[in-house]
Amino acid sequence: MVRWQPGARERLQAAALERFAAEGFDGTTVAEIAATAGLTERTFFRHFADKREVLFAGQDEFERLFVAGIEDADGTDPIAVVAAALEGATGFFPEDRRAWSRARQEVIDADPGLQERELLKLSKLAGAMTDALRRRGIDPTPAALAAESGVAVFRVGFATWIAEGEERPLPVILRAVLGELRSLLA
Amino acid sequence: MVRWQPGARERLQAAALERFAAEGFDGTTVAEIAATAGLTERTFFRHFADKREVLFAGQDEFERLFVAGIEDADGTDPIAVVAAALEGATGFFPEDRRAWSRARQEVIDADPGLQERELLKLSKLAGAMTDALRRRGIDPTPAALAAESGVAVFRVGFATWIAEGEERPLPVILRAVLGELRSLLA
Repeated sequence: MVRWQPGARERLQAAALERFAAEGFDGTTVAEIAATAGLTERTFFRHFADKREVLFAGQDEFERLFVAGIEDADGTDPIAVVAAALEGATGFFPEDRRAWSRARQEVIDADPGLQERELLKLSKLAGAMTDALRRRGIDPTPAALAAESGVAVFRVGFATWIAEGEERPLPVILRAVLGELRSLLA
Repeated sequence: MVRWQPGARERLQAAALERFAAEGFDGTTVAEIAATAGLTERTFFRHFADKREVLFAGQDEFERLFVAGIEDADGTDPIAVVAAALEGATGFFPEDRRAWSRARQEVIDADPGLQERELLKLSKLAGAMTDALRRRGIDPTPAALAAESGVAVFRVGFATWIAEGEERPLPVILRAVLGELRSLLA
């Protein structure tokens, strides 16, 4: 009989980041993560395929939010559509996720393999956004440029959001960064 | 005594792409590449550390061209500086490299590990460009946005350059793509 552990997933995520920060990603085992969370390895594998998945779980949901934002936006101006998608995707990053996101980024920055995985995630996001813009009838080059611009704004804005001392919410930061990009290219 | 083989490097690069296209990257050995080029494995290793290096040789030179372009550009407008860097970097992609670049991209697109390596290369390029813009006194956010925009224009323009049937030279395409980005964000 499988017993559901309330909050197990969140406890495993917190425990994993604690271990990764202390011992490095490569130096941490699933057994250690489970023990730190006070849970069994079996419970770990009920929630995550492997230790890397702790850092990348929710990736499909993250991409889906951007694509849904593009599909649901009003108008046909590519950048306005991408701006709406950025707004929608900020729902994935509520305030209480900021500290976790910061700690996660530190683990990723310390490991080239994780960096490559993160870059692939963002590259796939740009591809999915380009496809969604194309489905709205936008030509290939503007679709690709609007998607790449959206991902660039997200990258720069997200790095700002998790910087030490930053207190503005992510949607406010993303709007400011998009405004800066507009004035740079004006 | 080491005998220098004239044109060996170019023959090895052509042979490697031929084998990768036919057998896949993973399915190709250095021995096969050398044999296809009519050269020895020893000669191969005089030119490349491993078979992946055939695809990524010149990466430092590629990045150096962008950074030098930023350092040498006139003015302080971040996008104008990046535009000058894009112009300078096109020297890395003369017309007679277009067919090779197209074949190389097909090999990379077929292999997730090579895709990750290519993404890491472009991410490092954006970082190096951001640092070079910062050294010119540009603030962190505009420096990062201008660098990311430059890499986005390069990615989209390069994909256009190697598309079947495209005949415009890369500098012409990059100027057109940057112009499209400007009008999108206007």
